[in-house]
Amino acid sequence: MPWKTILFGRPLRSDEWQHEQVNEWAGLALLAPNAISSVAYGTEEILLVLAPLGLAALWYSLPISAIIVVLLVFLVISYRQVVRDYPNGGGAYVVGKENLGTIPSLLAGAALLVDYTVTVSVSVTAGVAALVSAFPSLAGERVEVSIAAILVMTFVNLRGVHEAARVFALPFYLFIALVLLVVAAGLIHPGPIVTPLHAYVVPPYVKGLGLLILLRAFSSGSAALTGIEAISNGVPLFRPPSPWRARITLALLGLFLAVMFFGVSLDAFRLGIVPTASSTVLQALAQQTMGRGIVFYALSFATMTILAIAANSSFAGFPQLAYIMAKDKWMPHMFLSRGDRLVYQNGILFLSLCAILLVIIFNGSTDKLIPIYAIGVYLGFTIAQVGLVRKHLREKTCDLGAMAIAGFGAILTAIVVLVAAISKFTEGAWVVVLLIPLLVLGFLRIHKHYEAIAGELHLDVSQQPTRKRITVVVPIASVNRMTTDALSYAMSMSQRVVAVNVAHDEGERQLIQDKWAAVAQSPQMELVVLDSPYRSIVQPFLRYVDDLRRDMADNSLLVVLIPEFVVGKRWQYFLHNQMALVLRAALTARKDTVVAMLPYHLSGQ
Amino acid sequence: MPWKTILFGRPLRSDEWQHEQVNEWAGLALLAPNAISSVAYGTEEILLVLAPLGLAALWYSLPISAIIVVLLVFLVISYRQVVRDYPNGGGAYVVGKENLGTIPSLLAGAALLVDYTVTVSVSVTAGVAALVSAFPSLAGERVEVSIAAILVMTFVNLRGVHEAARVFALPFYLFIALVLLVVAAGLIHPGPIVTPLHAYVVPPYVKGLGLLILLRAFSSGSAALTGIEAISNGVPLFRPPSPWRARITLALLGLFLAVMFFGVSLDAFRLGIVPTASSTVLQALAQQTMGRGIVFYALSFATMTILAIAANSSFAGFPQLAYIMAKDKWMPHMFLSRGDRLVYQNGILFLSLCAILLVIIFNGSTDKLIPIYAIGVYLGFTIAQVGLVRKHLREKTCDLGAMAIAGFGAILTAIVVLVAAISKFTEGAWVVVLLIPLLVLGFLRIHKHYEAIAGELHLDVSQQPTRKRITVVVPIASVNRMTTDALSYAMSMSQRVVAVNVAHDEGERQLIQDKWAAVAQSPQMELVVLDSPYRSIVQPFLRYVDDLRRDMADNSLLVVLIPEFVVGKRWQYFLHNQMALVLRAALTARKDTVVAMLPYHLSGQ
Repeated sequence: MPWKTILFGRPLRSDEWQHEQVNEWAGLALLAPNAISSVAYGTEEILLVLAPLGLAALWYSLPISAIIVVLLVFLVISYRQVVRDYPNGGGAYVVGKENLGTIPSLLAGAALLVDYTVTVSVSVTAGVAALVSAFPSLAGERVEVSIAAILVMTFVNLRGVHEAARVFALPFYLFIALVLLVVAAGLIHPGPIVTPLHAYVVPPYVKGLGLLILLRAFSSGSAALTGIEAISNGVPLFRPPSPWRARITLALLGLFLAVMFFGVSLDAFRLGIVPTASSTVLQALAQQTMGRGIVFYALSFATMTILAIAANSSFAGFPQLAYIMAKDKWMPHMFLSRGDRLVYQNGILFLSLCAILLVIIFNGSTDKLIPIYAIGVYLGFTIAQVGLVRKHLREKTCDLGAMAIAGFGAILTAIVVLVAAISKFTEGAWVVVLLIPLLVLGFLRIHKHYEAIAGELHLDVSQQPTRKRITVVVPIASVNRMTTDALSYAMSMSQRVVAVNVAHDEGERQLIQDKWAAVAQSPQMELVVLDSPYRSIVQPFLRYVDDLRRDMADNSLLVVLIPEFVVGKRWQYFLHNQMALVLRAALTARKDTVVAMLPYHLSGQ
Repeated sequence: MPWKTILFGRPLRSDEWQHEQVNEWAGLALLAPNAISSVAYGTEEILLVLAPLGLAALWYSLPISAIIVVLLVFLVISYRQVVRDYPNGGGAYVVGKENLGTIPSLLAGAALLVDYTVTVSVSVTAGVAALVSAFPSLAGERVEVSIAAILVMTFVNLRGVHEAARVFALPFYLFIALVLLVVAAGLIHPGPIVTPLHAYVVPPYVKGLGLLILLRAFSSGSAALTGIEAISNGVPLFRPPSPWRARITLALLGLFLAVMFFGVSLDAFRLGIVPTASSTVLQALAQQTMGRGIVFYALSFATMTILAIAANSSFAGFPQLAYIMAKDKWMPHMFLSRGDRLVYQNGILFLSLCAILLVIIFNGSTDKLIPIYAIGVYLGFTIAQVGLVRKHLREKTCDLGAMAIAGFGAILTAIVVLVAAISKFTEGAWVVVLLIPLLVLGFLRIHKHYEAIAGELHLDVSQQPTRKRITVVVPIASVNRMTTDALSYAMSMSQRVVAVNVAHDEGERQLIQDKWAAVAQSPQMELVVLDSPYRSIVQPFLRYVDDLRRDMADNSLLVVLIPEFVVGKRWQYFLHNQMALVLRAALTARKDTVVAMLPYHLSGQ
C-alpha cells in the first residue's frame, strides 16, 4: 500500500462525493464547533468589561446577553435565507456579489478569509493555554504544541470531510451535554440568595460613561456569535437536499447556542459569579452547582478540546470559500483542485501555513490575537444582511418581516465592527483594518491577470492550426549512436536539420567535421561548428540559436532537439556533465522555440 | 561588469594560457610552499621521538637528518627524470601507468589525491593553531577560521594560477630568507658550548629498542619531504620549455630544502635546543641567535603564513592530477573542464569541499590529522621510483647510477610507508589504509561505466540517420490560441497528431469535444478525451502515452509536445498550476519518447 494511502486513506472517485457528504448532526459537529465553543468565553467577555465598574454594573450583563440572543435569532433567520437562496455555499461573499457588486463581495471574502485564519490561531492557542494551565511544565513549548495541534488538524482534514466530522463529534456533543447539564443545575440551584434586583442602583458615574461601556461590552460579548456563517459557507458538504439540511442545522445551532449562552449568563448573575484569574465563569458555575467532581473535570477537558477543534470550522470554511472565489477568478486556480480524498487540499494547506505563521508571529499568545478576531466575521455578517435587504428591495418581495430582521441585524453587526475596529485599533485591530483592503487589491490584480489571459487565449473559429516550415537544431558533442538517433528524429520532423557542435580548438573542429562527413550524408542535414575561445558551450550555442531565429521567416518554426543520456543508476549521473539539462534551462521560454529532450538509454553497467 | 568578472577577473581565452604560465621562481612559490614549509616542523618531529630517550639520544638527529637529506637528493634526481620523461604532469600516477600497469598507477593516484586533501586540512589547521597561540581569544572559532582560510585559498586559486603565485610569493620567499638567516646565525653563534660529541655515550636501553625507535624518528622526520612531487604534477603550469623549467625548479627546491632542513637540525644540536610546549625549535633557534627581536617575530609570522599557504600546492596539484585521471576515464568528466580563468575549477572546488569536511570531522585539530598525513605521498614516491627502475630495465638504458638512486630511494620511501602505516595505524592511519583501496575500486567502477558507454555509443559508418514515422501527442486543457499554436507545430512535424484532454466529468468531456469540432477540422488530427475518476491529470495521460507507445511500430517515433504558459512576472506563476512542468517531469527518460516544451508567451498584465 503506498504511504499516501496509509496516511490519508484510499483515493476517492469523484462520484463518491455523496458518501463524503454529511447529515445534520454530523454537519453540526463539523461546522459548528467554533460557534458553540464561544459559549466558553462569551459571558466572560461581557463580565470582564463590566466588572471594573462595580458589582452594580453586572446587572447589565442580562440585557446585553438578551440583545446578543436577539441578534443571534436575526442572524439565524438571515442566514437560513442565505442558505436557501445561495445553496452553493460562499455565504456573505456570494450574497454581496449578487446584490451589492464587486467591491463589497470582495470585502466580505477578504474579511472571512482573514477571520478563518485568525480563528484557527486563536482557538488552538486558547486550547493550548487551557492545557498549559493543567500541565504547567508545557509552558515553555506553547508555540510548538500549538503548531503540532494545527498540523494534526490539517492531517485529519486532509483525510476528508467525513473523517473530520467523525473524530470531532464526540467531544463536541460532550461539551454541549455538559454545559446544558450545568446550566440546568444552576437554574434549580438554591444558590447564595443574591441581592434582589431592585437593590441594584446604577451608580452615577456609570450613567456618564454609560453608552460607550455598554457598547464595548456588547461588542466583546458578540464574539459568542462568530462561527454562525460557517454553515452557510459549507452547504455543499451536506447530503441532498443540502440546503434543507443546512437550514435545519442552522436552526439547531441557533437553538443550542441561545440556550447555552443565555443560560450561562443568567446563572452567572443569579449565583453572583465573576471571572477570576484562577477559574473561568463556566468552571466556577460547574463548581458551585455540582462541586469539584467528575462533571467539573469533564467540562474543563471538553472546553479545552472544543476550543482546539473550533479551528475545524475554518478548515471546512476556508477551502470552500477559496474555491468559490477561485472559480470567480479572484484567487489562484490552485484552490480549485480536489485532492485524493475529495477535499480542497490546497486551501487546507494554505490555511494551515498562514495559521502557523500567525502563531509564530504572535508567539503562541491568545491575548494578542484576540483583538484581530471577530472584526472579519462581523464585516461579513453586515455585508450579507445588507445584501439581503437589497435583494428584497430589488425583487420587491414585500417580505417586510425578513427585511426588517436583516436590516436591524445589519445595523447591530455594523455597530460591532465599528466599536471593535475603533476601540481595539491600537491593540492589533489595525492589522485587519489594513489587511482586508490589501487583500481586496490583490484579488483585483489576480482577476485582471486572468481576464487578460482569457482575452489573449480567445480563439476565433477562423484560426485553424496550419502547417509551417520547421527547422530542427541538434546540439551534438560528438558523432555517435546517440547523435544518429537524434538526427533520425530531427530529419523525420523537418526538411532542414542543423547539427551544432561547439569546438574548443582547431583540433576538435577538424575531428568532428571528419566524423560527420563519414556518417551524415543526407543533403537535408548540415553541420555547424562554433568556436568557443572562452570554453563555454552554452553561450555560443545560445547566440547561434538566437541568430538563426532572427533570420527565419516569420511563420516558420524552430525546434531545438537535445539528446540526453539516461543512465541506469543514479550515481552515474555524477559521471556525465549535465549539458543537456543546462541547455534546456538556458533555452527556456524563448518565443516560438520548442525545446525537445530526447532521452538516450544507456545500460552503462 | 558582471559579478563574476569583479570577483574572479575577466574570462580568459584558451589561447591566453601561455600568459598564465609561470617561470621558475614563480613556479617555486606556487608549487613548493608545502615542501619548504616542512622545515618548520621536520627537525622537531625527529627530536620529539628521540627526546624521551634522554639527552644522549639527541645525537641521532644528525645521522637521521643526513639520511633524510640523502633521500631528498635521491628524490630530486628521480623526479627530475620523471619531469623529463613525462612532461605532461601526473607524477607517480603517470610513471606507474607507463611502467607498472593499472593497479599501481591507480594506487599512486588515489594516494596522492588523498594526500593533497589531507595536506590542505593539516596545513590550514596548523597555521590556524599558530594564529590561535598568538590570539588565544580565537580558540573557540578554530573550525570557523580554518574553513574561512580554505575558502580564501579556494577563491584565490579560482582567480587563476598567475594570481595565486603572485599572492603567495612574498611570504614564501620571506620565510626562506629568514630561515637561512637564522641558520647562518646559528652556525657562527658561539653558543653555549655543548658537551663535545665524544661525551655522548649511547645508553644500553637505547641499543635494545634502537632500530625501531630510529626508524620511527626517520619516518616522522621524512614528513619534511612531502610536497616534492607537486612540481612533477604541475609541469604544464611552467612556461615553455616547461620540463626544462620544472627541472630547474626541482633542483632549486632540493637545494633550499636541504640547506634549510639540515641547517636547522645541525644548529639545534649545536645549541642544545629541544622542542618545548611554549616554542618550536625554529623559534627557539631564532631567539637564541638573534634575540626576541624583529627577526623572531617576522619568522613566527612567516611560519604561520607559509603553513597556511602550504595548502596551495594541493590546489595546484589536485586539479591537475584529477584532470589527467579523468582524461584516462578513471575519474568523472567534470574534472576535465577549465573555467573562465583557465583553471580546473571543479577540481579546486571538490578539493576545497573535501578539505572542509575533514576539518569539520576532525574538529579543526592538527594532531588528529597528522597520522593520516604523509603515507599517501610516500606511497606515491615509492611507486614512482619503482616505476623508474622498471623503465630503466625495460628500456635497457644501462644507466646504473640512476637505477641505483631510484631503487635505493624506493626502498627508503617504502620503509617510511610501512613504518607510518603500522606505527600510526590505530591513531588514524587506518583511514588512509582503507580509503586508498576503496578509491581504487571506485576508479575501476567509473572506468567500467565509461568503457561500457563508449561501446554502446560506438557508431558504424553504415548506421546512417533515417527518416521515420512520427506521432505527436499534445496534452490540451482546453481549446484556445495556445492549443492552436501547439497543433500548428505538431502538424508541421508529423502526419499524425493526437490531442489529449483529461476530463473530470461528462460535462467537461462534452465541452471540449464541442469546441474541438468547431476548430480542428484537419483529418490528420484527432482528439482523445480521457476519463479521470480520481481527478488526477498525470496518471491517465501517462497511461495513454505508454499504451500508445506500445502499440506503435518499432521504428516509429513519439513526440509529446507540451504547451506551457510563460507569463511576464514571476508572481504570476503562482496563478497557474504548473501542469506543463509536472507532465515534463513525469515523462522524463521514457525510451524513444521526445518531450518537447512549447512556450506560449502571455503578457497577462
